[in-house]
Amino acid sequence: MKILIIHGPNLNLLGKREPEVYGTRTLEDLEVLLTDHAEDRGVALDFFQSNHEGEIIDRIQSAGDESDSLQQADAIVINPAAYTHTSLAIADAIKGTGVPAIEVHISNIHARGHMRARSRIAPVCAGQISGFGFDSYKLGIDAAISVLKT
Amino acid sequence: MKILIIHGPNLNLLGKREPEVYGTRTLEDLEVLLTDHAEDRGVALDFFQSNHEGEIIDRIQSAGDESDSLQQADAIVINPAAYTHTSLAIADAIKGTGVPAIEVHISNIHARGHMRARSRIAPVCAGQISGFGFDSYKLGIDAAISVLKT
Amino acid sequence: MKILIIHGPNLNLLGKREPEVYGTRTLEDLEVLLTDHAEDRGVALDFFQSNHEGEIIDRIQSAGDESDSLQQADAIVINPAAYTHTSLAIADAIKGTGVPAIEVHISNIHARGHMRARSRIAPVCAGQISGFGFDSYKLGIDAAISVLKT
Amino acid sequence: MKILIIHGPNLNLLGKREPEVYGTRTLEDLEVLLTDHAEDRGVALDFFQSNHEGEIIDRIQSAGDESDSLQQADAIVINPAAYTHTSLAIADAIKGTGVPAIEVHISNIHARGHMRARSRIAPVCAGQISGFGFDSYKLGIDAAISVLKT
Amino acid sequence: MKILIIHGPNLNLLGKREPEVYGTRTLEDLEVLLTDHAEDRGVALDFFQSNHEGEIIDRIQSAGDESDSLQQADAIVINPAAYTHTSLAIADAIKGTGVPAIEVHISNIHARGHMRARSRIAPVCAGQISGFGFDSYKLGIDAAISVLKT
Amino acid sequence: MKILIIHGPNLNLLGKREPEVYGTRTLEDLEVLLTDHAEDRGVALDFFQSNHEGEIIDRIQSAGDESDSLQQADAIVINPAAYTHTSLAIADAIKGTGVPAIEVHISNIHARGHMRARSRIAPVCAGQISGFGFDSYKLGIDAAISVLKT
Amino acid sequence: MKILIIHGPNLNLLGKREPEVYGTRTLEDLEVLLTDHAEDRGVALDFFQSNHEGEIIDRIQSAGDESDSLQQADAIVINPAAYTHTSLAIADAIKGTGVPAIEVHISNIHARGHMRARSRIAPVCAGQISGFGFDSYKLGIDAAISVLKT
Amino acid sequence: MKILIIHGPNLNLLGKREPEVYGTRTLEDLEVLLTDHAEDRGVALDFFQSNHEGEIIDRIQSAGDESDSLQQADAIVINPAAYTHTSLAIADAIKGTGVPAIEVHISNIHARGHMRARSRIAPVCAGQISGFGFDSYKLGIDAAISVLKT
Amino acid sequence: MKILIIHGPNLNLLGKREPEVYGTRTLEDLEVLLTDHAEDRGVALDFFQSNHEGEIIDRIQSAGDESDSLQQADAIVINPAAYTHTSLAIADAIKGTGVPAIEVHISNIHARGHMRARSRIAPVCAGQISGFGFDSYKLGIDAAISVLKT
Amino acid sequence: MKILIIHGPNLNLLGKREPEVYGTRTLEDLEVLLTDHAEDRGVALDFFQSNHEGEIIDRIQSAGDESDSLQQADAIVINPAAYTHTSLAIADAIKGTGVPAIEVHISNIHARGHMRARSRIAPVCAGQISGFGFDSYKLGIDAAISVLKT
Amino acid sequence: MKILIIHGPNLNLLGKREPEVYGTRTLEDLEVLLTDHAEDRGVALDFFQSNHEGEIIDRIQSAGDESDSLQQADAIVINPAAYTHTSLAIADAIKGTGVPAIEVHISNIHARGHMRARSRIAPVCAGQISGFGFDSYKLGIDAAISVLKT
Amino acid sequence: MKILIIHGPNLNLLGKREPEVYGTRTLEDLEVLLTDHAEDRGVALDFFQSNHEGEIIDRIQSAGDESDSLQQADAIVINPAAYTHTSLAIADAIKGTGVPAIEVHISNIHARGHMRARSRIAPVCAGQISGFGFDSYKLGIDAAISVLKT
Repeated sequence: MKILIIHGPNLNLLGKREPEVYGTRTLEDLEVLLTDHAEDRGVALDFFQSNHEGEIIDRIQSAGDESDSLQQADAIVINPAAYTHTSLAIADAIKGTGVPAIEVHISNIHARGHMRARSRIAPVCAGQISGFGFDSYKLGIDAAISVLKT
Repeated sequence: MKILIIHGPNLNLLGKREPEVYGTRTLEDLEVLLTDHAEDRGVALDFFQSNHEGEIIDRIQSAGDESDSLQQADAIVINPAAYTHTSLAIADAIKGTGVPAIEVHISNIHARGHMRARSRIAPVCAGQISGFGFDSYKLGIDAAISVLKT
Repeated sequence: MKILIIHGPNLNLLGKREPEVYGTRTLEDLEVLLTDHAEDRGVALDFFQSNHEGEIIDRIQSAGDESDSLQQADAIVINPAAYTHTSLAIADAIKGTGVPAIEVHISNIHARGHMRARSRIAPVCAGQISGFGFDSYKLGIDAAISVLKT
Repeated sequence: MKILIIHGPNLNLLGKREPEVYGTRTLEDLEVLLTDHAEDRGVALDFFQSNHEGEIIDRIQSAGDESDSLQQADAIVINPAAYTHTSLAIADAIKGTGVPAIEVHISNIHARGHMRARSRIAPVCAGQISGFGFDSYKLGIDAAISVLKT
Repeated sequence: MKILIIHGPNLNLLGKREPEVYGTRTLEDLEVLLTDHAEDRGVALDFFQSNHEGEIIDRIQSAGDESDSLQQADAIVINPAAYTHTSLAIADAIKGTGVPAIEVHISNIHARGHMRARSRIAPVCAGQISGFGFDSYKLGIDAAISVLKT
Repeated sequence: MKILIIHGPNLNLLGKREPEVYGTRTLEDLEVLLTDHAEDRGVALDFFQSNHEGEIIDRIQSAGDESDSLQQADAIVINPAAYTHTSLAIADAIKGTGVPAIEVHISNIHARGHMRARSRIAPVCAGQISGFGFDSYKLGIDAAISVLKT
Repeated sequence: MKILIIHGPNLNLLGKREPEVYGTRTLEDLEVLLTDHAEDRGVALDFFQSNHEGEIIDRIQSAGDESDSLQQADAIVINPAAYTHTSLAIADAIKGTGVPAIEVHISNIHARGHMRARSRIAPVCAGQISGFGFDSYKLGIDAAISVLKT
Repeated sequence: MKILIIHGPNLNLLGKREPEVYGTRTLEDLEVLLTDHAEDRGVALDFFQSNHEGEIIDRIQSAGDESDSLQQADAIVINPAAYTHTSLAIADAIKGTGVPAIEVHISNIHARGHMRARSRIAPVCAGQISGFGFDSYKLGIDAAISVLKT
Repeated sequence: MKILIIHGPNLNLLGKREPEVYGTRTLEDLEVLLTDHAEDRGVALDFFQSNHEGEIIDRIQSAGDESDSLQQADAIVINPAAYTHTSLAIADAIKGTGVPAIEVHISNIHARGHMRARSRIAPVCAGQISGFGFDSYKLGIDAAISVLKT
Repeated sequence: MKILIIHGPNLNLLGKREPEVYGTRTLEDLEVLLTDHAEDRGVALDFFQSNHEGEIIDRIQSAGDESDSLQQADAIVINPAAYTHTSLAIADAIKGTGVPAIEVHISNIHARGHMRARSRIAPVCAGQISGFGFDSYKLGIDAAISVLKT
Repeated sequence: MKILIIHGPNLNLLGKREPEVYGTRTLEDLEVLLTDHAEDRGVALDFFQSNHEGEIIDRIQSAGDESDSLQQADAIVINPAAYTHTSLAIADAIKGTGVPAIEVHISNIHARGHMRARSRIAPVCAGQISGFGFDSYKLGIDAAISVLKT
Repeated sequence: MKILIIHGPNLNLLGKREPEVYGTRTLEDLEVLLTDHAEDRGVALDFFQSNHEGEIIDRIQSAGDESDSLQQADAIVINPAAYTHTSLAIADAIKGTGVPAIEVHISNIHARGHMRARSRIAPVCAGQISGFGFDSYKLGIDAAISVLKT
């Protein structure tokens, strides 16, 4: 079982950007943490970060391409960051490939302003997890396993 | 460590109500499941269901009352059901008692209509988990443990 | 055939409250009138009034509980009064129990301001009758009988 | 006592149009049914159907013309169909003639989208009845009799 | 002359809840203060707090019940807290009982966000006083006396 | 202790303008009343009325000018009348001078239409009092004293 | 010089309909009055009333048909009544025929609710006159003469 | 195969009305052009123009009446002009008769203001073609043929 | 009979400002024109122009002051220019003084953007005249005479 | 004559994605079909698909670059897919290069929800064609030829 | 070359008002700074501050009066402060006089709430500069010189 | 001191695209101009243009990367063009890297339609300069220097 973890725009800045909101740990720290977490559950992870909406769409599509064993994934855990609120195209990619996806957010987006609370992508995901720091990703992996089992 | 599980209005109908959305398992089934899940993690659970907004507020307040060891809880996992979208008073109760709370939903509320996607309560919670069936509660318990550890 | 008549908040004030809108007859007068009307049609009535949203939900649920012959009802005629415009939880209760319901209003709510014209509950009812004074209830009983026959 | 029944645009298609919503019975079937219902109550009916907003206005006005015994009516039961949501001019006609009117709908308009739930005409009617199939008309006739008695 | 003081949901948490906004004094402190203030003016007070919308409605109704000398009151000073913004039913209760009411708020609700600034209840009150800490209640009592004198 | 009373546009018409809303007593009557009320509390009053937004701003600024003992004031009680709903500039003046201000209204602005219920100025005041006739001003003076004491 | 006077839907009810708003004089009274007024100015009038949007469009078009001396007109004074607020098609007819038009209203539409204040037709007219009873038409004729002279 | 071409209100003015937008060619010119175009494809055309919403509804209904070989049509190409934006009744007629319809516009309605860009009728059509002058109709005929073939 | 003509902000620029909209004639030209027009009708005029909202309010108030024969007027014809859309205070002044007022505009404000079409002042005037160049004022004077006669 | 066909994001999934809406034929099938269609009309086609907004902009710009004979095109037929509703930048590219463009959609976007019905790009195109399956592209090519001829 | 610098309401409080936003330097400090800056560029400055909307309009008009060499100016740099968001009349004055104007703001108005981000005046200015403290004025002078050179 | 100049989508078309709005000078012309301007002030410039949102984000991030002396910059002057109104991701990049940024626009965006006046990016910039043609960039460089000095 392989889960693709997608980090949206500016998440490569983790640890530098607004540490009072996101903490000082970096994206690499997060990925080490998640690899451990996944190993405990016997699941392989594949990581992808991009600031480009188009590249994220390409990667989601290749996750659904069964002829490409390197890129293919059984589920997607995605933190679309700013594209959460604007990208219908990423939503279409998820809906089109048919790979079950879980939307995660480090901070609680429901506690932010009106525009930052609305997600264009969550409606086509299995569900959304928001507000638990790096643990949002861990919970996302567990949710993905749960979704795949049903 | 004790976690209070609050089920909002009509969740006592689980298994009867709109089974195509919520499945045929009952609230009792869910509570057995969660008790097992919590025991594995060395956590005690306390269950509460009410159709009354006022009773839910009373229960949240007593969870924060340190002099009442029976009612007191370290964290709350709450599925406010229909009150999610209308109750500022429950939000005030959570904010006022200071017990960390996690909002959970069985179905993906972000995939429903505009009014059913907006939560009045999530902004005062640590976070929200939505869309994973009964597993939303399990993930909520794990999230609560994660929040309490930080 | 038994029909449950539910009167929402402040309807116990009937005859006192804003008589220029609702007339001087009391809730008791209304219930006598309806009992006569129902007897003519060979139907039993059960009356319930509450100012508590939660109690109304409880009562709707018990109407759908087939093991409770005292509370069970074949149909519900409900005047949700102020809860018409705010209570998603009562709507969920009606939808969840599956007992067919008719929404009635003494005055013409469509002739009132924007907020008082929109019903949160009518969408889950069989239909709505509004504007005919106490006769709205009589027509509601006839409508319930019609719905049960189909 | 004479009641004018007005059917708005496209109701002449009844039985053909969207049978899954409106059933397979035709407008003629409906009128036979209503004639029986009215006879039981000692009331005469006059039927009118038009797809033209202007003709409906003309007919409402003639119902209020006391010098024209053929056209005059004591009350109007009107299903304005699509004009429900757009015609201020029909509303003005009802208000201007002073003949009491009842708005009826076969399906439950409150369960449809935002625009189809709002009526421009109901505010000037005695009341509105919506959702009971052909029986909405029967209830409308009974409501008209009730209104005329007060 | 007797004035009923109603405290809405979560006000029993006063002194614990968000002290940076509401101070550290408790509801009991407030009631002692108000009793003194009222005695100076020769007025009796009756206190009521509830987290239940329905109980608040019941209490408002009993204040208007002239046959019940224990519950009856000449005026109401009400801080509806979170129900300020959502409860049409409490507004209907005040309008229906006819006892003059004054809405009070400890903090300045006009300085909070859009939703927290709008009151559903103030339109049926004699007036509103907002922003003066516990003194809002004192001013409310004085306002009630002034209203009763006119 | 000196309190500046500011009357906004058209309040010089008091007693002439819409007497059914504001009564027949004039601005002079009001000022006599308030002077008595203030004397009882050992407080001096300074009155100012203008129909000019700019003059009201000038006067608020001079109230905050500690070098000008004639104009300086410890608090402001202001009825901004129509400027309540449109003047960001008066709000900026109050915020900029730092003299605590209380907004008062003779009638209950919350019972008027949407636009007349929203205040641009209340958010920068200590609080707002609305609906008690001339007594709104008296309560405003008492509120000002209370604010100055804290 | 010939001016076409168009009366929109329900204006044939003038004198019967809401006399407290429109007075007791009939459409015939109005036309006699206007004929006198026009004769004084050496202008011929042609009257047209219809409840049908389509007929009003047809008549506006024929007013612009230079080959039809009977129907042709140099200017139009139109009271579109309820169609004022809904008919883009009448607006297109006026714009398309090129005959200068003046919109008139008996009552002051700006003093009515939001929907009744907005005109779909005035933007394509030379101007609008509203609020002066029957004299709105007289002023409309004078305005038409003024427009034709420029 | 027969296609009914419906021209909405004011399209009979083509060639006169706003020539800078619609050109100087008349409705007759257009119909000659379309007849040629249809003949090349072995399709018969039937033309209908009306300024009356009701007549357009009647004509759509007769196109769906299989017993009336003169009026019946296999598909409809409709330019609803101003009724595009206001007529729910025409939309209901199309939906009710079941004859596939294509909405066409001479100018690009998406480049016009907000209200002129939204179509009430397109949602019940097979599709919409907008912006290609008279060729919009030609493309509409080709689209109709394509729709009928599937 | 004396009519006060009030010109709002920037109308002193007439003849200079946007001549393609307002023409090249100056405010003085206009006043000569109006004086002639008024003399023909045996009416005296008093002119007032100001860029200050407060001065316009002062002048409206003095027009209603019966003890001041110089300033007093029987009616007001006012072109509030930009204050049309923002000044509740001028509206209050007109309503408060009770002198009947007519709102006039040189250009057709209904043909301008959304904000420029809405008047805050027209609802308290007898009526509004808009779009006839300088003749809007002449028609306004005639309308004032008509209003005074009723 | 060369026409550039641009397929927006996720259209490379055609045949896989939501076949109940878009059918089972792939993008390659579509391009074969269009090449045939274009050859019949003596027109060359150039195909481009990308999930990247920026690449689509680059390609539109190169179509307008007359010095680049390989990339240059006489017209563009574009299906912007999800970018239809969000991309002002693609609209600017079309407007900036000056190559005439036709927007096409496989499904009827006007029959989808509010957000999916509004196009940011259509206003700068010659026109829009929506709802005819793959034939929308064919009609788009014919429309492009028609536009180039004028 | 002379540039008129206009400071809107409350800017005379600079150095006192909200120093955490605007700093502690006064309006006089600013004007000394700007005089130096202008001298370096060979430009004369004229300063004007007022809290009165009307006086600001008067001053803008006199800047455009070529017969008044004292008041006349070649360009205007204006910080309208709170009037930025409410004054159509100042916008009309700028548009009417034809003197090129530059809108400047000390703080970044785009980073403030919705209402404070929208300018009624910028649309009639050459441009807007916002967010650079006192240097916004310096940049405004340079921009004015640039505008005058073109 | 090094300033990075970022040109958003379609600005490479400068001189070709809508010359009536942007003039005929090209991006290269602009960059020569700015280089001269910067040299006078002893500042180095680095230019970057892209039509890709993702590339712009990458470039902003590298400007904040202190280990990369080639890409690093002390400030950013950015004209986000169409992304101004839609890109939350670019705003996040600027906020995340911490390099002070100035938003500039060639034309006055406040004079364009509602959507084109709102900036998603300006709130995270030091300020915004809009409307001065190529000189907006020059002023932006001066503003950047000013910001860096504070």
